[in-house]
Amino acid sequence: MNAKLSHYPLLAAIASPEDLRQLDASQLPQVAKEVRQYLIDTISRCGGHFAAGLGTVELTVALHYLFDTPKDRIVWDVGHQAYPHKVLTGRRDRLETIRQTDGLHPFPVRSESEYDTFGVGHSSTSISAALGMAIAAKQKGDERQAIAVIGDGAMTAGMAFEAMNHAADVDANLLVILNDNDMSISENVGGLNNYLAKILSGKFYSTIKHGGKKVLQNMPAISEWAHRVEEHMKGMMLPGTLFEELGFNYIGPIDGHNLDALLDTLTNMKALKGPQFLHIVTKKGKGYTPAENDPIAYHGVPIFDPKDDKLPKGKKKITYSNIFGEFLCDIAEKDPRVLGITPAMREGSDMIEFSRQYRDRYFDVGIAEQHSVTLAAGMACEGMKPVVAIYSSFLQRAYDQLIHDVALQNLDVLFAIDRGGLVGGDGATHHGAYDLSYLRCIPNMVIMAAADENECRQMLYTGYHFEGPAAVRYPRGTGPGVSIEKNFTKIPLGQSRTMRSSSLTSDGSTKDSATNKKVAILSFGALLGTALKAAETIDASVIDMRFIKPLDTQVIDQLIADGHSILVTLEENAVQGGAGSAVNEYLTECQFNGQVINLGIPDRFIEHGDPNDLLQRCGLTAEAILDRINDL
Amino acid sequence: MNAKLSHYPLLAAIASPEDLRQLDASQLPQVAKEVRQYLIDTISRCGGHFAAGLGTVELTVALHYLFDTPKDRIVWDVGHQAYPHKVLTGRRDRLETIRQTDGLHPFPVRSESEYDTFGVGHSSTSISAALGMAIAAKQKGDERQAIAVIGDGAMTAGMAFEAMNHAADVDANLLVILNDNDMSISENVGGLNNYLAKILSGKFYSTIKHGGKKVLQNMPAISEWAHRVEEHMKGMMLPGTLFEELGFNYIGPIDGHNLDALLDTLTNMKALKGPQFLHIVTKKGKGYTPAENDPIAYHGVPIFDPKDDKLPKGKKKITYSNIFGEFLCDIAEKDPRVLGITPAMREGSDMIEFSRQYRDRYFDVGIAEQHSVTLAAGMACEGMKPVVAIYSSFLQRAYDQLIHDVALQNLDVLFAIDRGGLVGGDGATHHGAYDLSYLRCIPNMVIMAAADENECRQMLYTGYHFEGPAAVRYPRGTGPGVSIEKNFTKIPLGQSRTMRSSSLTSDGSTKDSATNKKVAILSFGALLGTALKAAETIDASVIDMRFIKPLDTQVIDQLIADGHSILVTLEENAVQGGAGSAVNEYLTECQFNGQVINLGIPDRFIEHGDPNDLLQRCGLTAEAILDRINDL
Repeated sequence: MNAKLSHYPLLAAIASPEDLRQLDASQLPQVAKEVRQYLIDTISRCGGHFAAGLGTVELTVALHYLFDTPKDRIVWDVGHQAYPHKVLTGRRDRLETIRQTDGLHPFPVRSESEYDTFGVGHSSTSISAALGMAIAAKQKGDERQAIAVIGDGAMTAGMAFEAMNHAADVDANLLVILNDNDMSISENVGGLNNYLAKILSGKFYSTIKHGGKKVLQNMPAISEWAHRVEEHMKGMMLPGTLFEELGFNYIGPIDGHNLDALLDTLTNMKALKGPQFLHIVTKKGKGYTPAENDPIAYHGVPIFDPKDDKLPKGKKKITYSNIFGEFLCDIAEKDPRVLGITPAMREGSDMIEFSRQYRDRYFDVGIAEQHSVTLAAGMACEGMKPVVAIYSSFLQRAYDQLIHDVALQNLDVLFAIDRGGLVGGDGATHHGAYDLSYLRCIPNMVIMAAADENECRQMLYTGYHFEGPAAVRYPRGTGPGVSIEKNFTKIPLGQSRTMRSSSLTSDGSTKDSATNKKVAILSFGALLGTALKAAETIDASVIDMRFIKPLDTQVIDQLIADGHSILVTLEENAVQGGAGSAVNEYLTECQFNGQVINLGIPDRFIEHGDPNDLLQRCGLTAEAILDRINDL
Repeated sequence: MNAKLSHYPLLAAIASPEDLRQLDASQLPQVAKEVRQYLIDTISRCGGHFAAGLGTVELTVALHYLFDTPKDRIVWDVGHQAYPHKVLTGRRDRLETIRQTDGLHPFPVRSESEYDTFGVGHSSTSISAALGMAIAAKQKGDERQAIAVIGDGAMTAGMAFEAMNHAADVDANLLVILNDNDMSISENVGGLNNYLAKILSGKFYSTIKHGGKKVLQNMPAISEWAHRVEEHMKGMMLPGTLFEELGFNYIGPIDGHNLDALLDTLTNMKALKGPQFLHIVTKKGKGYTPAENDPIAYHGVPIFDPKDDKLPKGKKKITYSNIFGEFLCDIAEKDPRVLGITPAMREGSDMIEFSRQYRDRYFDVGIAEQHSVTLAAGMACEGMKPVVAIYSSFLQRAYDQLIHDVALQNLDVLFAIDRGGLVGGDGATHHGAYDLSYLRCIPNMVIMAAADENECRQMLYTGYHFEGPAAVRYPRGTGPGVSIEKNFTKIPLGQSRTMRSSSLTSDGSTKDSATNKKVAILSFGALLGTALKAAETIDASVIDMRFIKPLDTQVIDQLIADGHSILVTLEENAVQGGAGSAVNEYLTECQFNGQVINLGIPDRFIEHGDPNDLLQRCGLTAEAILDRINDL
């Protein structure tokens, strides 16, 4: 046992849920206490998602205690809240490696543990997945429970509703647990949230409520009218009408930090058949006061001192998200038609200041990517200038809306696509690896990728000016540190920027030698610095292409005319169908006799880890680029 | 006035809603009668979407009569039901051209009429779009109404829920009209549907109900308890609780064929502020008995004789959908792990027989593409073999789920992708023009495109055998008529089929002449016949590539080794990032010194029309291929 574990006498003995289940129920509050403290001690040393996990400690203990995991399937929605689950399912001692290269995955992942029944990361998949498992169990005649644990934020996503709607119609053993903490990453929004708040404005019923439900269920339904009276009687006592109306048996709300209430209720519910819905109320950050007071700040944390009541202030290097936030405020000031939309990522997309300054023009639509894009389309129809701020991997959720509602109608919507490229610790689910490919095939789109901070700002401005669908893609985190011009300058559509011109002659010879071929690196987006570094060594030309669509074909013609015989395309996107393939398509038309190398993210899913490690593993370093060129 | 219009005295005088609004309300039933008859007379002569429009005649008349269209915005969801709208908004005389080349669009389209406020085609976008318009109106200080008309089928889609959830939180003048006919294209399914059916099991209240609502609204809310009693009292009398709980003011259900009730209710609702919800009940096919009796068959119709009580039987040429349907039944018989999933397209995907034979293994999840894919992922986690039957353009709705839930976890899900390529009359919203591009960039995917009927069957079998995510893409309608082998034969992964070998020597010379270059056409999917036709003329080689991923690079090597100096890639998908670009990417690696032509759907949205016209306009005929080759 490692030294620190001596502080956690019960937890130290729990190598798997099997060990947990050997304990007496009276010991569980102590287990919960130790898990919580372990999370605080560990995550404060390594960083990671924090407040959500503190809110699900008791639930996690109760579920693994009562259910026969992993035979019974628990699907954690999103997975921010699954750290206690990792601690109790054999990964306690590796928790401090979470999100790091080769460390524990940031979210549940099937390959990491048999207790991780479904890989998550994006919101609101849990009910669909658990329903699929419940149906499969029924088909196979397996007696097992499928449980989806989903937050109130995740419940606002359409796919959760789709799954609820379907589940109600299927006779399968599905338990949906709504972990209601009145939060997504920011405060939760929308009609459902108001409804849940209304439920909670009543008092808690815990056991009484459950008893009351039983009585009502045993009441014979004398007639349809009596049945309806009963329904609405239940509605008055048990305010879960909305979920009941969809066909679920609703129990709740109960206090999700009260282990006795959880154990009692879950024990009773285990015996019930068909779609069950348990509504528990928890506090994000529970048990660590600074996180309870500011769950948004403590959603994901850097290394911090748990004795402080504040997180350390990071180096204030400006991020691409900051640049977008500032652009949005600046352009909104100039143009009252500008409206800002986020699917529940106010902080991540840095729309905090905009939401304060332009409250009436700020729209947090909930975790609702599909709606966010079509809402923008509707606004654009009326001459407004909507800006949808969205992560690259989340835009996958609104792909049809982008095609069918925006691009097809050629509407004036600006997409500010954050987290384009590899994101680091959030891993495979969050890398923005496909946007250039999935956007490039769509007609009418203008697509830009920013190579530095100022270019990002001016591209956003360019996209704002373009009267049709435009996307600006930029990476997570900080850029090279280029100073930002406050003045806006429109970039001519499809115009690249030549960063470096090779001094080689067209046959590759310098004044002194004739050993090299003349190389041009066509860089799309944030790897420009890498391209320049590689180019120094071999005296290559480097073009900051800026536009994926329309492509700057003139510069390609010129490079060829200038005798470049090797063209290297470079992007932080899948090679397949990406920016490089746009260059290839053009080259098929223009009789290029030289050689082409397409560099980008290889055709496999990339894990989490330190961004530099990931780039190295993808062959996207200056050294790797040179190796590829030298291989020719 | 054209001769036939003499049968429609009122309709003949309605060139726009302005004319309609000049009439006395007492004349409207006659207008509705004429519109309905006009639809029957016209659509029976030209074919098109039929039963849905018959169900919305009265609603359309009432809306254009009461609201100041086009200043007030009506957004028709999907648009199947918008034919009466087209008739009343200046397109009466062109209705008979609908869906034909250069004729009226199949759905509302902004470029066709100022009354078409939002282009539709895919389901469930209307609330988002109308909300965007309502917000824009508020921002601009415009006094106008935004109205979304959405069916009960479309309400099952997540994005409708996302929009409802958001709308409830926004103070904007939005009216959502639920056109409840208990149908999507098939019967509607799910918890929401059961709930609506429960509402309708009560009697109709129409005006009484509305009166009752008013009384309750004026009742002072003495306390929270009183308020809740009131809520549930309303619930008993006015069973719209679910929508009320989301924050809408619910009115209904009322008879959607009773013009008086519609006019009274809508007049009252116009005066109300904030999100309003009107539930009307209609009959799909209303007023034409055969369609009322079989609304599924009469959803979309060919030319028929309205005096018959049956639609004419089509030539029984087998479609690709039929091939899939038969495959699914055959494989399900062999393997009990096979489960079939459709997002509400039982007929279109031809799962009718499967749904009958394998009722417990058939899952119509509603219009819920996102859920359909993640449900399959959950099933696959448990060792089942789910098959998701989905149209190419609808899979755009489940793109993130395909990446995040299926491909990333490398789960064994088979996608049967129907309507790959140009679909004809359904037009731009329904062309399957992007799937090869948006799937090709995703790791772990196996992607096939069928060139003929038997290949389709064997590819589905191959995908079923492959223990990971596989997609088989096939076109709408019929194939070349190749006979189908009942026996299953697995195709080795990534293995193409050589259809024709050029007899030219490697320098392009024949025994007699030396004028040509040696050409190979690499055909991906259904244009194989076109490739062969073109190849005859120039003695080109033709490869049926079969796999987009993994690509048959060996055959490409061999073609190059055999002296082919022009490679032509051919696909019914966008050129950008499509199968041809996969060939380009490979060619960058293998020192090909020849020329490449990428043929496919050009980079613009393609309208509706006769499939042959569309192929011609896209340059995808044998003649056009030859022209492109000769241009070199």
